[in-house]
Amino acid sequence: MKKTIMAVVAYDGTNYQGFQRQKDYGVGVQQVLEKALSTALHEDISIKAAGRTDAGVHALGQVISFETSSPIPPENYRRALQHLLPPDIAIREAFIKPDGFHARFDALDKTYRYTVLYAPLPDPCARRYAWEVRSSLTLAAMNEAAALLVGTHDFSSFKNQGSEKTSPVRTLYEAYWTQEKERFTFTIRGDGFLYRMVRNIVGCLVKVGTGEWTVADFAAVMAAKDRKKAGVAAPACGLSLVHVSYPEETAER
Amino acid sequence: MKKTIMAVVAYDGTNYQGFQRQKDYGVGVQQVLEKALSTALHEDISIKAAGRTDAGVHALGQVISFETSSPIPPENYRRALQHLLPPDIAIREAFIKPDGFHARFDALDKTYRYTVLYAPLPDPCARRYAWEVRSSLTLAAMNEAAALLVGTHDFSSFKNQGSEKTSPVRTLYEAYWTQEKERFTFTIRGDGFLYRMVRNIVGCLVKVGTGEWTVADFAAVMAAKDRKKAGVAAPACGLSLVHVSYPEETAER
Repeated sequence: MKKTIMAVVAYDGTNYQGFQRQKDYGVGVQQVLEKALSTALHEDISIKAAGRTDAGVHALGQVISFETSSPIPPENYRRALQHLLPPDIAIREAFIKPDGFHARFDALDKTYRYTVLYAPLPDPCARRYAWEVRSSLTLAAMNEAAALLVGTHDFSSFKNQGSEKTSPVRTLYEAYWTQEKERFTFTIRGDGFLYRMVRNIVGCLVKVGTGEWTVADFAAVMAAKDRKKAGVAAPACGLSLVHVSYPEETAER
Repeated sequence: MKKTIMAVVAYDGTNYQGFQRQKDYGVGVQQVLEKALSTALHEDISIKAAGRTDAGVHALGQVISFETSSPIPPENYRRALQHLLPPDIAIREAFIKPDGFHARFDALDKTYRYTVLYAPLPDPCARRYAWEVRSSLTLAAMNEAAALLVGTHDFSSFKNQGSEKTSPVRTLYEAYWTQEKERFTFTIRGDGFLYRMVRNIVGCLVKVGTGEWTVADFAAVMAAKDRKKAGVAAPACGLSLVHVSYPEETAER
């Protein structure tokens, strides 16, 4: 009897060419997970993921789904996989879901977190999981601009070439910065994201934070619906997919 | 004319066999720094460091001293070295010091920071710079035990074999934990530390935090002056040498 499994997966994306299986060069998180799951469950496992994170992007709460006939209970997957996975990928939790559950199509919303570190002097221990900036940042201005993102908008200005040919309209439910000393954390939750959208948004919001742009400049870029108006994307290392919500979900975030 | 230089150095120690130059296998931070400095300053540079951090231990504020005849002003070292050093080592600042200044002998005290992360579920992005523990920790108990360390004591219980044959008596000026959500940070400042002392202390304090030991148990271990009574050392990855103080120092910490 096939069961449908949902698993929450975390990874340090530094050494991967993104989540997706790679054909030409480099390794995607997907193929490492599929290999480990296939070994543990003694059958070929093919997984679907909630979001395809880019090369170098991390995840704390990526969600995958797959079918299996294995009798191993999902609550044992974490331990069963622990020694089959490299230290930069981990299964956090796994559950049985109703047949037909699909990690991507059933997702209600996704939450990404981006970390910017104001570091006037270099800190090599920060570089892997944050974007180190040398200019100081104004939290209030970044939050004023971020608030403009919330709601249903055409996000073409923040979409890179290479996106699927889908509508550039998305709905964002939350977009805000918090600050703890030199650490600025951006949380963004929406029903979907265009290719490079979060990193392009962060690149622009940091321009507001440093004073290079006003909030009105940011609003004009967003209204232009033209990627050429926006600035450089923030580096991948600061980004993490932290949570994916599903309809049946109860508590735990 | 030889000048004496003091430089503040930061590194991600993950890929190094400690600070010290390695003879047999692996690479020490020292040899990478000496090679880059020798290239930049066009002469053989030999450095002294405030503390010899262990394999895998990080630094935000390691201090080195060396002599040079180079006319390059020290304020330019950071940029001059940036492309000669790998991304996991950086010069933060450099100054001219009076002749005879020695990073180790002139140090007044050193501050180490140890990060413990209470992570009921694995987070691969935390593993590089923190000790992930699966049991919850009680801050108050850890602080009660840590307070016993402050002052001048015989720290033999926390000293690993392999220490130089010096006195096991050291003076600690500060030893306390702070908590920010699941992140527990231990700050310890003293006039000197025995081999593995900080990691051995943290290993014991975490036993107090999880409730495996009482504060009285910790006090008894400390009083025993016997390494065999103490627990397992905390892993290197959570430790960082964050600051070294010198007599002439003015502000900046």
